[in-house]
Amino acid sequence: MNMADGAKECEPASKKIKIQSDIQENDENIHTVLKDFSEFQQKRILSINSQRKTICIEGSFNNKSGTAIVLLEKKPFNEESLKNTLDYSCTLHKEFSNDIYGFYECFPSVKYNGIKTTVIHPATEKHIKKYQSQDVHLIEETPELYNSVTLPHLQKEKFSLQWVINILEHKSETDRVVFEDSNPEIGFILLPDLKWDAKQIEDLYLIAIVHQTGIKSLRDLNSCHLPLLKNIKEKGIKAIKEKYNIPSSQLRIYVHYQPSFYHLHVHFTYLKYVAPGIHAERSHILSSVIDNIELMHDYYQKATLSFVVKETETLFLEYEKRGIVKKR
Amino acid sequence: MNMADGAKECEPASKKIKIQSDIQENDENIHTVLKDFSEFQQKRILSINSQRKTICIEGSFNNKSGTAIVLLEKKPFNEESLKNTLDYSCTLHKEFSNDIYGFYECFPSVKYNGIKTTVIHPATEKHIKKYQSQDVHLIEETPELYNSVTLPHLQKEKFSLQWVINILEHKSETDRVVFEDSNPEIGFILLPDLKWDAKQIEDLYLIAIVHQTGIKSLRDLNSCHLPLLKNIKEKGIKAIKEKYNIPSSQLRIYVHYQPSFYHLHVHFTYLKYVAPGIHAERSHILSSVIDNIELMHDYYQKATLSFVVKETETLFLEYEKRGIVKKR
Repeated sequence: MNMADGAKECEPASKKIKIQSDIQENDENIHTVLKDFSEFQQKRILSINSQRKTICIEGSFNNKSGTAIVLLEKKPFNEESLKNTLDYSCTLHKEFSNDIYGFYECFPSVKYNGIKTTVIHPATEKHIKKYQSQDVHLIEETPELYNSVTLPHLQKEKFSLQWVINILEHKSETDRVVFEDSNPEIGFILLPDLKWDAKQIEDLYLIAIVHQTGIKSLRDLNSCHLPLLKNIKEKGIKAIKEKYNIPSSQLRIYVHYQPSFYHLHVHFTYLKYVAPGIHAERSHILSSVIDNIELMHDYYQKATLSFVVKETETLFLEYEKRGIVKKR
Repeated sequence: MNMADGAKECEPASKKIKIQSDIQENDENIHTVLKDFSEFQQKRILSINSQRKTICIEGSFNNKSGTAIVLLEKKPFNEESLKNTLDYSCTLHKEFSNDIYGFYECFPSVKYNGIKTTVIHPATEKHIKKYQSQDVHLIEETPELYNSVTLPHLQKEKFSLQWVINILEHKSETDRVVFEDSNPEIGFILLPDLKWDAKQIEDLYLIAIVHQTGIKSLRDLNSCHLPLLKNIKEKGIKAIKEKYNIPSSQLRIYVHYQPSFYHLHVHFTYLKYVAPGIHAERSHILSSVIDNIELMHDYYQKATLSFVVKETETLFLEYEKRGIVKKR
């Protein structure tokens, strides 16, 4: 679940107050009043992931207009939470046992068993599509297909990058910045991804957003960008080593294709952490990206790149229209 | 976490009673008395999986001899559990909000938030190794490192490939073969991977093993192998379409580096299935492999390839000995 592509930035406090006074009570921002789910009306389950222990629900709130999406995710264990689970206050209910193996359900106190919850309201049709489980396809994008289908699509869609600009201009999330190199050509800002609460290294996830504008994705990279890519790799590694004491050999450093937003950014995750979107059909290891460009300066303008697309995405429809991919 | 390989069968009731009367009160089966974790002494955390929300702990119980292993796993959501989470009894604590996005922690009642718990007692050294997480490292293997470290290691280890030869010579698993092209140069045998029970397409996993011997891995591939690679892709797709009705755009076709055995084989998995080992640091999409060789005939002899290695693997020790990677 990646919030980033739809996420807007925190407004400055003064602006926020103004906006709130403008809107009707009925349409008051839900997040200023939400205390429990008693007013929530469930419409349908959009998706369930049994492996990650997540669920996405579409619904609405009584007396509020607009659709709401609720995302629930059980929290990972850590040393701290464990202390509060394995104590006398936690009761065990035995299901069955077999020789040396016993199978139980344990019930920690309420306060030690919170669930990570995200509420999106009002949610758009795009949000619903994003969280709805659906069929996916792999597209083998040749340079010709990039230029004739993908690129015109990107230019037409004009995704907003305001939230990225806000970060780069220090207008938001300034307190979250882990490292900055302010050089306009090779500099970047490193900060925790929204999926990481920055509390434990087990699921460490940072992103480096480049200061240079206009690099949409992997497809735009060539030998001119080698100093930028090497700088991100070197200084990103150094900053993470200093702050989190993780050596470079235990980091997965990569870019997505297609990315979730079209301003060059690099992902840094803890190697042992099975982060979302690290599959071979979506992620490209940064050191291979650098190596490919060193082997062939225009590698990313010549290569066929595969990417995954959901059936409801407009990019899928563009490829379907041309008979390059079709629904089952 | 797979219990099956260590699990013993239920003893008949008569035998069970006999065994219980033989043992000392002190060594009474823990599962007959365990009610909570108040008597549990934690020794160390063996592993944490943040994605699956699991943790394994080694410890012991007061006044009981032997080691205990406790495995905790948060439970997946389902329609039933959801009803009891999203109700008035569940309180919400807001962490922060940003425009339409609100980030909360929700606290359901104790009884609706149980944790799946397995207790193994007494546990053996083998159990501990099985559940103990090992640190992994990413090695950036240049052609020089391949030739000076990896290749000599492979030649020294001499992994047995007898089971592969048995399949290729129709001496075993003949009834599992889905498709065969018997051409000695470009032919292969396609059969379900051992991890797939071949019962449902949701976790479809087949492998194509080439007839040609002597191709150890990706590193050996060059333009001479293009007919072989293209044949596997084309005929593998066709066989899967015919037998399982999955179109090529819903298949993930890839090779591993390092592979688990050094005789060229190609993996075919259902795109929606999160199969093990599909991460970008291990898997290489076959169409990119073909494309890379078409762009540069000796790409795989020139490229830097990253791979993941566990600290206990002998290949890690070879790289550690040379100071290329080190334990934290």
